[in-house]
Amino acid sequence: MKRIAILGSTGTIGVQALEVLSQLDTYEVVALAAGRNVERLAEQIRQYRPKLVGVADEEARRALRELVPGERVDIVVGDEGLVACAAYPSDVVLNAVVGARGILPALAAVGRGARLALANKECLVAAGELILRAMRDAGGEIVPVDSEHCALHQCLRSGRPEEVLRLVLTASGGPFRSWPKARMAEVTVRDALRHPNWNMGQKITIDSATMMNKGLEVIEAHHLFAVPYDKIAVLVHPESIVHSMVEFVDGSMVAQLATADMRLPIQYAITYPERLPAPWPRLNLASVGALHFEEPDLDKFPCLRLAIEAGRAGGIAPCVLNAANEVAVDAFLREKIPFLRIPQVVQAVLERVPNEAPQSVDDVLRADGQARRLAELYVAKGG
Amino acid sequence: MKRIAILGSTGTIGVQALEVLSQLDTYEVVALAAGRNVERLAEQIRQYRPKLVGVADEEARRALRELVPGERVDIVVGDEGLVACAAYPSDVVLNAVVGARGILPALAAVGRGARLALANKECLVAAGELILRAMRDAGGEIVPVDSEHCALHQCLRSGRPEEVLRLVLTASGGPFRSWPKARMAEVTVRDALRHPNWNMGQKITIDSATMMNKGLEVIEAHHLFAVPYDKIAVLVHPESIVHSMVEFVDGSMVAQLATADMRLPIQYAITYPERLPAPWPRLNLASVGALHFEEPDLDKFPCLRLAIEAGRAGGIAPCVLNAANEVAVDAFLREKIPFLRIPQVVQAVLERVPNEAPQSVDDVLRADGQARRLAELYVAKGG
Repeated sequence: MKRIAILGSTGTIGVQALEVLSQLDTYEVVALAAGRNVERLAEQIRQYRPKLVGVADEEARRALRELVPGERVDIVVGDEGLVACAAYPSDVVLNAVVGARGILPALAAVGRGARLALANKECLVAAGELILRAMRDAGGEIVPVDSEHCALHQCLRSGRPEEVLRLVLTASGGPFRSWPKARMAEVTVRDALRHPNWNMGQKITIDSATMMNKGLEVIEAHHLFAVPYDKIAVLVHPESIVHSMVEFVDGSMVAQLATADMRLPIQYAITYPERLPAPWPRLNLASVGALHFEEPDLDKFPCLRLAIEAGRAGGIAPCVLNAANEVAVDAFLREKIPFLRIPQVVQAVLERVPNEAPQSVDDVLRADGQARRLAELYVAKGG
Repeated sequence: MKRIAILGSTGTIGVQALEVLSQLDTYEVVALAAGRNVERLAEQIRQYRPKLVGVADEEARRALRELVPGERVDIVVGDEGLVACAAYPSDVVLNAVVGARGILPALAAVGRGARLALANKECLVAAGELILRAMRDAGGEIVPVDSEHCALHQCLRSGRPEEVLRLVLTASGGPFRSWPKARMAEVTVRDALRHPNWNMGQKITIDSATMMNKGLEVIEAHHLFAVPYDKIAVLVHPESIVHSMVEFVDGSMVAQLATADMRLPIQYAITYPERLPAPWPRLNLASVGALHFEEPDLDKFPCLRLAIEAGRAGGIAPCVLNAANEVAVDAFLREKIPFLRIPQVVQAVLERVPNEAPQSVDDVLRADGQARRLAELYVAKGG
């Protein structure tokens, strides 16, 4: 039996991960961390019997304890609790926390030599170099859960690192791919939450609609696979069947294709280097019929451009971009700002925070905090 | 410097292989074999200075000698000459001979532990088990040059052999993919030689039009990758961009994509496990725009069904199928029989030759000869 901790266990990825583990039968769930959804967490505790559980705060702890009075489980709270769950002895830590809160648990996991199954791209965006350094120092490893990076991880097996010409990240283009630019001012929260292919959490669904998600993925790929930005391309592929591709120096492109089902990358990240049989529906290309590809429109989706520029700039710029984006997306979801204001807030914050190279995670968290406060100010100014 | 022999050097594959080698600059061409195109062979001798050269017969030898009077090159003839070129000390033998004549040189190459870069699928179809056994005994290896098998070879690197659920061979569907079945009786040689994507030799172009080529490739894949027939599928993909795919047990499909340019698989087969930079045009998926997939029509293309059935039957059946097909295609090209007679000749010959397990290459060659004589009889009976 291998031991696994799941951070973000009541979210979309966490729930699917537990479903995958139920089928595998060779993993013991030793720790779970969630936010305030204590009802679902209580069910998970009864079913998986973890040793340690993390929740958002004291109020959630009390509520959870009342729901599982007889369970012998330690309950920890807040960011410290989240880190304690990542630090608890296990072979794999699935980090499916949303946003920059994933940084400290990611460091805790790779820093003790565990495998980090990474669904929280923001931690690599904000603190990629620090996390990769901690991983190398401790002999840990990261296997990505994002479908695109899981695809790249698989395709890269077909050649050597020095034979890679380009990574090609595919993007569905989101719900506004075929909208004329002029209409983008009318986008509602409801429109933006209507993703054509994937059923995901709210934050990432909005990021897909702005294409910020693809920009964050470019930065994530840069860190994960040690590939410079001029060798990472984005290609729009509305069907989300080709999850990404690697172009090698000899002209071969190797692609991974599958249905849009996160259980596959979740299982891959947990069981790699093994591939295990899986019960979910298989891809039938003849019934799909056609796959389409087009260049992304950086003019209509400025978030994609901003993210790539921040990635190239390096230092704390990606962290600032990510923090400002988290605040702006949250404000959009609460209908405080219109859709087109999201990239404006991000750009304004990026222009205000001087870039520097972070020496420690404290520098990163400070930049994150500064960017959030600035973003709140821009948000408060209104749309 | 590595040493290479090229069998079929004046054909489509041979000429492209020499072009690839000219760019690589790390291979010495030690032997060349061709048929009767002595003018082109003489040019190749002057440029590449092989030690040994094979031609079809004495007449070709005299003609060639007159063209290269001053060259210090040994000239050998016939099938023995072809085998001598494969047996000549080298690291790689590129077998781009057409048809069952490729069997003996394939055995000579793998039997002395060389790498066989294999463009002659017929040798594996007719004598797959014998060639694979000789390869294993001598510690040789086969790297396929067929674009489909080269794709599979690359995709298989993304998992373990026991994790393979299916090989999916793509097929362009040839020039008659969208013709109604009723019109197939009208097919002319000119129609059949008009392949939509690839510029290849006449034999393989007709095999593509009947889809016999895909059937032969199924048998080739079965031997090359040790995968049973019920795990090999054919999928029609008119653009010939996805060259084939491997479906793994976890639901991942890994595909190789590239332009329809045989120089890529030729170089891969020669330089594997290295991938080397290449000057040919790269794939631009955004400008291709769309890739289509559909199930093959076994009713309209009976050759595909006949080949898969012969593969499943095993023994000498694939050899008989291949020999009968070579005769029938030749007769079609000489306008002795109509297009729809090709599968009829093949089927009639398969029904007449009792199947048995070949114990030696002599058994295979005897079955090959018997099938050819029978096929000639059916051809002589007319359309």
